[in-house]
Amino acid sequence: MSKKIPPTRLIYADSESDSNLYYATQFLVPDPVFYLEHYGKKTLFLSDLELDRGKKEALVNKVVSLSALEKQFSKATGKKPKLVELMALYLKKLRVRKLLLPQTFPAALAFALKKRSFKIEFGPDPFYESRMLKTDFEKKSIARAQTLTGLAIQEAYKVLRASKIRGNRIYYQGKPLTSERLKDVIQIYLLENGCLAQNTIVACGNQGVDPHCRGSGLIYPNLPIIFDVFPRHIQSRYHGDMTRTVVKGHASEKLKKQWYAVCHAQEKAITQVKAGMDGKKIHDGIMQNFEAQGFKTGKLKGRMQGFFHSTGHGIGLDIHEPPRVSPKSHILREAEVVTIEPGLYYHGIGGVRIEDIVYVKKNGREVLGACPKILEIP
Amino acid sequence: MSKKIPPTRLIYADSESDSNLYYATQFLVPDPVFYLEHYGKKTLFLSDLELDRGKKEALVNKVVSLSALEKQFSKATGKKPKLVELMALYLKKLRVRKLLLPQTFPAALAFALKKRSFKIEFGPDPFYESRMLKTDFEKKSIARAQTLTGLAIQEAYKVLRASKIRGNRIYYQGKPLTSERLKDVIQIYLLENGCLAQNTIVACGNQGVDPHCRGSGLIYPNLPIIFDVFPRHIQSRYHGDMTRTVVKGHASEKLKKQWYAVCHAQEKAITQVKAGMDGKKIHDGIMQNFEAQGFKTGKLKGRMQGFFHSTGHGIGLDIHEPPRVSPKSHILREAEVVTIEPGLYYHGIGGVRIEDIVYVKKNGREVLGACPKILEIP
Repeated sequence: MSKKIPPTRLIYADSESDSNLYYATQFLVPDPVFYLEHYGKKTLFLSDLELDRGKKEALVNKVVSLSALEKQFSKATGKKPKLVELMALYLKKLRVRKLLLPQTFPAALAFALKKRSFKIEFGPDPFYESRMLKTDFEKKSIARAQTLTGLAIQEAYKVLRASKIRGNRIYYQGKPLTSERLKDVIQIYLLENGCLAQNTIVACGNQGVDPHCRGSGLIYPNLPIIFDVFPRHIQSRYHGDMTRTVVKGHASEKLKKQWYAVCHAQEKAITQVKAGMDGKKIHDGIMQNFEAQGFKTGKLKGRMQGFFHSTGHGIGLDIHEPPRVSPKSHILREAEVVTIEPGLYYHGIGGVRIEDIVYVKKNGREVLGACPKILEIP
Repeated sequence: MSKKIPPTRLIYADSESDSNLYYATQFLVPDPVFYLEHYGKKTLFLSDLELDRGKKEALVNKVVSLSALEKQFSKATGKKPKLVELMALYLKKLRVRKLLLPQTFPAALAFALKKRSFKIEFGPDPFYESRMLKTDFEKKSIARAQTLTGLAIQEAYKVLRASKIRGNRIYYQGKPLTSERLKDVIQIYLLENGCLAQNTIVACGNQGVDPHCRGSGLIYPNLPIIFDVFPRHIQSRYHGDMTRTVVKGHASEKLKKQWYAVCHAQEKAITQVKAGMDGKKIHDGIMQNFEAQGFKTGKLKGRMQGFFHSTGHGIGLDIHEPPRVSPKSHILREAEVVTIEPGLYYHGIGGVRIEDIVYVKKNGREVLGACPKILEIP
């Protein structure tokens, strides 16, 4: 009779930037710490600064005081140990020989452990595969963040609606409307509602042709404005991520065609999402759909134009996490959560992208959050 | 005649979380990318999604299209290459054999490069040692962030001043005042002024005894309230970091003694900062000063109390970066920027910490930003 022995996992990271560590411990720590999982038991190694908070807050079996360990080592050897020596000693006492590390484990430390005769293996990305299958709590947390994201974008709609077009400018409360002003409206609304948004995109006209251009300066009438907003819900740490594209005033015929192509492609792609579906098929379908309508992708006039990014990405504790909905095959599974966000980008017209978050179900899907998809705001 | 050949540096990171990559390229990218520095020439490897923005924004000598490189490889070998193969091929064409990686380079990738016969060495932390010596622009950026941080804390002072004590509660605009409300006041002020604050600490009474407890719930009269605020100035990406401790109402005699001990220790430590001074001497001085006044440090009643963290840390693109002002020796150099933030923490009285950012000069120092150090707010 054999029972599968779980691997001994080791992480060295801060959980504010490393979601695997946060996922494992539910403990927020701003500086890197060691975390060990041995026979399924979780141990955190903390400095005096974090020790008591860790004991109170971290969902682990044991919290080890680094300074106590250091004293023990110094007493035994008469030397002041390096951190890696301390850890190696601790692991050897446990008779650990083989370590499973995250792909992103700091290389210098991994080499130092290898030098001390540990066998090093690397786990998958994410380190905890269960991160890809969202629990009910996780789904709800993403949905809450996404609901607030939709409401925040609607705050920007309100500003556009209350603005006046004069010549080639849009005026709001007497001042020319800018990307910065709209970002403030969105981000302050989110902060007031417990979400932290960074790098929000409000990109007008040709700025939006670069999908990651955050946008700056004047917002012009009759040109597409991309809103791409992806805040973290501060308390749960889960993210929302939504994109809408609107025009203040009137869209040109060309832009209308482009906008409806994206909107329909996105809605069709969403209806294809269900467990067992290959993300590649969804992505390729969008590409073919665009091509069939004459929307070409590739280098045009020296720059990438058309649809030149993936259809979507997983989302959770990280804004971008596995799986992807992309040219690479991935069979969607129940309880995965992905974005669906096709776009078309042409210089001279501008960028159009529409994005929602979709929860994968056995026989279908559920779109989380909501926000009207409208092209023109009068 | 020999000229020193610079090492070939390789980074794989996203520059939103990795400050070394941002420092090298001044280019913000949310997903990991390869960056190469060979004979001092900088090359970024970007997907189609980032390609044109990279060409426009990144301060590098060359931007390589990953998809073009991939096509080249596929044509030559008939196989679809892994990213690491692609990079290995590119490096071998340049006859690179030895790579200098940051300590935090992803270990799985470093092992894969080693397997492909590259000699791996690790650089210091920070990867660019010049990050420790701030340019005039960097100093100004930190000062701007810190000035706004000081003003944000004063917004919280205003709220406390406008609040009323009734019994064991503080009322502001008719509602019991909470940590969350004060954080909103601070963080929204900062966002309106171009700064993004995360994990702001507003911790009252015993909550403040855990130096990294962010605080929550009711703020009580006559107990110390720690404000520790460390936003990033969004445009420059440099940080401020300031801590003040105040009381709404009256401080007990014990608390007064503790507060003045911290305040005087901090101010004395600041006057010791100058090029050539050992940070350890400053740290040890504070500790001895506290001990001499009867403020003990160590495990008391099962938890860490007294002064059990470092005196300060470097600050810049990262909130915490080298050097440290700590029990470990470090000779301060002109143009380094460090925090000076002693604290005393006792259960039953609460926590007191006061922190400023100091720029190290040849014969002295300059405190960046400002905010009154007051104990009692009536």
